[in-house]
Amino acid sequence: MTTLVLLSKDHKLLAQLQAAFAEHAPSLQVVLADDPAAAQARVAACWHPPAGSLARLPNLRLVHSVAAGVDHLGSDTSGPVVPVCRVVDPDHRQGMTEYVRWTVLHFHRDFDRVIAQQRSRLWERHPQRPAGQFKVGVMGLGSLGAAIASDLAGAGYDVRGWARSPRQLDGVACHYAEVGFEGFVDGLDLLVNLLPLTDATRGILCSRTFDRLARGAAIVNVGRGQHLCIDDLQLALHSGQLRGAVLDVFEHEPLPAEHALWHMPGVVITPHMASAASHACIARQVAENTRRLLSGEVLNNLVDPLLGY
Amino acid sequence: MTTLVLLSKDHKLLAQLQAAFAEHAPSLQVVLADDPAAAQARVAACWHPPAGSLARLPNLRLVHSVAAGVDHLGSDTSGPVVPVCRVVDPDHRQGMTEYVRWTVLHFHRDFDRVIAQQRSRLWERHPQRPAGQFKVGVMGLGSLGAAIASDLAGAGYDVRGWARSPRQLDGVACHYAEVGFEGFVDGLDLLVNLLPLTDATRGILCSRTFDRLARGAAIVNVGRGQHLCIDDLQLALHSGQLRGAVLDVFEHEPLPAEHALWHMPGVVITPHMASAASHACIARQVAENTRRLLSGEVLNNLVDPLLGY
Repeated sequence: MTTLVLLSKDHKLLAQLQAAFAEHAPSLQVVLADDPAAAQARVAACWHPPAGSLARLPNLRLVHSVAAGVDHLGSDTSGPVVPVCRVVDPDHRQGMTEYVRWTVLHFHRDFDRVIAQQRSRLWERHPQRPAGQFKVGVMGLGSLGAAIASDLAGAGYDVRGWARSPRQLDGVACHYAEVGFEGFVDGLDLLVNLLPLTDATRGILCSRTFDRLARGAAIVNVGRGQHLCIDDLQLALHSGQLRGAVLDVFEHEPLPAEHALWHMPGVVITPHMASAASHACIARQVAENTRRLLSGEVLNNLVDPLLGY
Repeated sequence: MTTLVLLSKDHKLLAQLQAAFAEHAPSLQVVLADDPAAAQARVAACWHPPAGSLARLPNLRLVHSVAAGVDHLGSDTSGPVVPVCRVVDPDHRQGMTEYVRWTVLHFHRDFDRVIAQQRSRLWERHPQRPAGQFKVGVMGLGSLGAAIASDLAGAGYDVRGWARSPRQLDGVACHYAEVGFEGFVDGLDLLVNLLPLTDATRGILCSRTFDRLARGAAIVNVGRGQHLCIDDLQLALHSGQLRGAVLDVFEHEPLPAEHALWHMPGVVITPHMASAASHACIARQVAENTRRLLSGEVLNNLVDPLLGY
């Protein structure tokens, strides 16, 4: 029986994942870090692994993120250099697509404005714009970003996409690399960020970007908290260059109660809820990659260490 | 040249419609009620026509609502009995579909809850439900209701529809007539009302209906204000039987500033913005029906006076 260790600072999650592996991957011996059997583990399934925990696994051959992102693995840099995989849940795409569709409709159809008006009992209609005249840009065209861009194009929006390398998506004007950034971002009514967090993307949601959007545009961050310069956001909201922001990710989660973002006018805070892979899917995909590892097959959703995703 | 008169209490709208007819229906002579030429008008295009205005049109042969609804024509009951038509804008369907999709996502994905949490800086995730486990019911399966039900079915929701007579829609469990009402409404997570206002539908959003929905369900009213019993809504929100309501229509519009609905917890008020036919579309459809009237052809979107739509 192959041994797999679960590593996380979140004890509630550990218990939930153990149950999910027991149900959906019964062929694996799944243990926690304090189990003596952990030393035999070939695979570590991780979410914010505690510092030093990977170094205690002499037989480790694969680190598996239990999420689509892998930046949370930075909480433990003690491990040996082994392949890293991530979980890509098809339902995760649907959840993320739903979340982003809500944000697009929220701004396109002026729900942000009428909800603000309601507080002062103000009845005022805003001119209705056809979806085809509302410009949405999606940064990051991986599995999630491509699904979102296609969904929005299908709903009739004027959609642009931006990625590191060239892409083709029906109904989406795709731009790429730094040279394509201005053409992508100029005049957008809504900018959605789904980029992975890398040195090249950190802080990309900043004044330089905001200033190129249409006056009164909005942003949605479902990437990582470190993509956003909060001071720049505050300036742009204050000046009216941005009318609003929906933020699902933060450098420190949960967002501390004293954080200024909670009460920043125009900002909607959601608790990293855009979408999570289901626990059943995590168990199945990690088990399948464990099987592939042991039989020498190509691993699914392998992370490129240079790109960071 | 055929003469058409525009009748409305809304002077801003009259000016906008005159411009739209000049551009999109130049073959018509379009006048206002105070123009001596109005006496020759065969067609009156109306939005809340002033009381007594129709009686002053001896040559009237067609009353045309400039909206999908016709109940606003009740503001002037002085006219002769002539056919009544309404405007059915394909873009109107898209606008309404967008509006309802926002409301469905708003409750399905718990945006109502997290927006309320934000006020008290509370970070709390809610279990994510697949769309297929969220039951949405659409009352009224005319042009708009059918488009909405199909849109939601396409997005993966568990969709039911209810209409006066039997319908068939892919992916929608259709119920009909009073005998089918309980099967339609029982256990719904969200109830969307798009019914026309008739004696049979007035007050249909009441405790008897609310009590059959799932505990903590929500309602969306894009029909007419008179469909909703406000006292019953308040009771249901207070008891927790309903978690929220999005209301776009009211018995008196604009909703008076002193009205209790503005600040009722769980209620989102929008200013009758779900969707309006574009002025270009109004001008084209009214002109086309005027041509059909004069050449003796069948009229488009003719209202059945017994049904009221």
